[in-house]
Amino acid sequence: MTHSTTLPRRHLLAGSAAALGALGLAGWTGRARAQAAAAPAAKPLPAYAGWKTPEALIVHSTSTLETRRSAFGTSVITPSNQLYVRNNLPAPDAAILDNRDAWSVAIEGVKSPRSLTLAELRTLGVETVATVLQCSGNGRGFFPSKPSGTPWQVGAAGCVVWSGVPLRNVVAALGGLADGAAYLTGTGGEKLPEGVDPLTVLVERSVPVKALDDALLAWEMNGEPLSLAHGGPLRLVVPGYQGVNNIKYVKRVAFTSAQSQARIMSHGYRMSPPGSKASPDQPSVWEMGVKSWINGPLPDKGALKPGQVQVHGVAFGGTRGIKGVEVSADGGKTWLAAKLIGPDMGPFAWRQFALPVRLEAFSGALPL
Amino acid sequence: MTHSTTLPRRHLLAGSAAALGALGLAGWTGRARAQAAAAPAAKPLPAYAGWKTPEALIVHSTSTLETRRSAFGTSVITPSNQLYVRNNLPAPDAAILDNRDAWSVAIEGVKSPRSLTLAELRTLGVETVATVLQCSGNGRGFFPSKPSGTPWQVGAAGCVVWSGVPLRNVVAALGGLADGAAYLTGTGGEKLPEGVDPLTVLVERSVPVKALDDALLAWEMNGEPLSLAHGGPLRLVVPGYQGVNNIKYVKRVAFTSAQSQARIMSHGYRMSPPGSKASPDQPSVWEMGVKSWINGPLPDKGALKPGQVQVHGVAFGGTRGIKGVEVSADGGKTWLAAKLIGPDMGPFAWRQFALPVRLEAFSGALPL
Repeated sequence: MTHSTTLPRRHLLAGSAAALGALGLAGWTGRARAQAAAAPAAKPLPAYAGWKTPEALIVHSTSTLETRRSAFGTSVITPSNQLYVRNNLPAPDAAILDNRDAWSVAIEGVKSPRSLTLAELRTLGVETVATVLQCSGNGRGFFPSKPSGTPWQVGAAGCVVWSGVPLRNVVAALGGLADGAAYLTGTGGEKLPEGVDPLTVLVERSVPVKALDDALLAWEMNGEPLSLAHGGPLRLVVPGYQGVNNIKYVKRVAFTSAQSQARIMSHGYRMSPPGSKASPDQPSVWEMGVKSWINGPLPDKGALKPGQVQVHGVAFGGTRGIKGVEVSADGGKTWLAAKLIGPDMGPFAWRQFALPVRLEAFSGALPL
Repeated sequence: MTHSTTLPRRHLLAGSAAALGALGLAGWTGRARAQAAAAPAAKPLPAYAGWKTPEALIVHSTSTLETRRSAFGTSVITPSNQLYVRNNLPAPDAAILDNRDAWSVAIEGVKSPRSLTLAELRTLGVETVATVLQCSGNGRGFFPSKPSGTPWQVGAAGCVVWSGVPLRNVVAALGGLADGAAYLTGTGGEKLPEGVDPLTVLVERSVPVKALDDALLAWEMNGEPLSLAHGGPLRLVVPGYQGVNNIKYVKRVAFTSAQSQARIMSHGYRMSPPGSKASPDQPSVWEMGVKSWINGPLPDKGALKPGQVQVHGVAFGGTRGIKGVEVSADGGKTWLAAKLIGPDMGPFAWRQFALPVRLEAFSGALPL
């Protein structure tokens, strides 16, 4: 592990708590090299995301596109054409965008339940929030236990800006919550395959009803009408919660006493011990934890060159924001506070950090 | 003017000062309708900006692209593919992006003047700032004096995020400012036409040296390497200053005792009284003033429909930021504080505002 004198580690201080999330760099250098090497043989972008920048993305499958580590800049916001995609079902037909204002969402579990069109939602208020959008499997590719699923590296995540109506405004307009509301349950509008029990494939997730404080029904992302790839015309956005809870093409929002019976809720997206199957008694992937990674410098080929560099990366704290980031360039013996750069876009956004570091000459085998 | 009871006015409070920038809506409704009507017969995008979204832009000429009012959302940041373009000379050959790190900029008027490559600049630090980028002629199309130049409506402006090295870091690395530095002068790297006095066409602008506090040499915009259309590979960004001062393809930064002798400085971009020619004794277009406009609701065709709407728009204060925005829906008799929505991205960014308003039925002629 002779690399430890030349590459930094990070050290996170989340919120005002003493939580420390140090993450070694043993894995990332080797992975970054593998990623760069794999670039030429890319699969083509799927049609529904054909407007994205192919050079910025790793196409794992039609439903799983990852942002390359080298594509993350230092501008806080991830541009839409570089943002990852993870769909649990094929995207609906693009025709659902032909008349955005006619899209309808059923609101249940309120005193006066009814369906509202997007045109009606637009009259109930507008708010804008920046959030980290992240697949809960992000980083899976680094796990030594080799769990099943897409081997995401760092790029099943981004930081984007949403505009839409606060869901609490909608609830207030419909008389408030009905009695017994414990969960906020969103249902996606994907077309379900025939011949299977709908509950085995339906995209329906429940989060604790406290998420109502921040949730949006969003029709705009990064300044443009929400694309099909990211859930347009309307998406349930639950700031600070893992990606799967942000229901695309949302057609129903229900305040329920129990969690959804859909398999994606009961037997998927649970915090399962390595080797075990997901089950309802395990914690669901709801609020994101403290996390950070380095996006640069990356070696063009082979090892990083010695010299002065700006180490930069991202850090976020789920619903709590980030207080600071520390970096060590000596394998954890000493730590220096990195500078948080760019505007603070609120507790649900990530912060980017930078620290000038002088990399010394390095010889020896790079770790995997 | 019977429209005054149905449409709001805005009322701006900039910084902590008592500056009031009320702007009537007499003009905008008619203009918005004209804009919508003109949409189908659009000119094609020029090649250097061919990656932009044609539906979002009005192509005035090869060098002047305007964002449609209807394309401004409520997500604070203007996506790059919708951002306006105004070039004073044809864009350089795209080959200047082939090796970004080899781009060189001469730094003069410092104790140890020298040229630095973009690769070297990247080692000197990185900062990220959100700024309003605006052509000083934005809104010219509304002026009753019909001044010459592109008849911009509201869309020669956007709010974007820049990343690069603080220029003050560069100056510090080169020993500090030389004596007598009064102006920060940037020179663009455009190819000059032959057979004319270079000073008549050179893009070179001087701003007061105090702008050094905030200026960046930027290589990234909105999370992507800076495009040719917006000045890549390297642009001088002067936060809070009118667009022309943000020199594209910057090849020289000089700290000078006098302003540039280029015509674009001496006899262009001056605050000239209507009908007069620009001259060096008039104020130069440097820091932006307080400004605001409404982006919605816009009529699909004809007049706005009565009913509940969210009036929304943007407001900015040059280098000072915005304290608040007030809206009147009764022709200025009463004013209500609009809600500032979305993250505050710092004093150089714009804020977006929204206010719920009930539009009443309207009859009569719409004003021009």
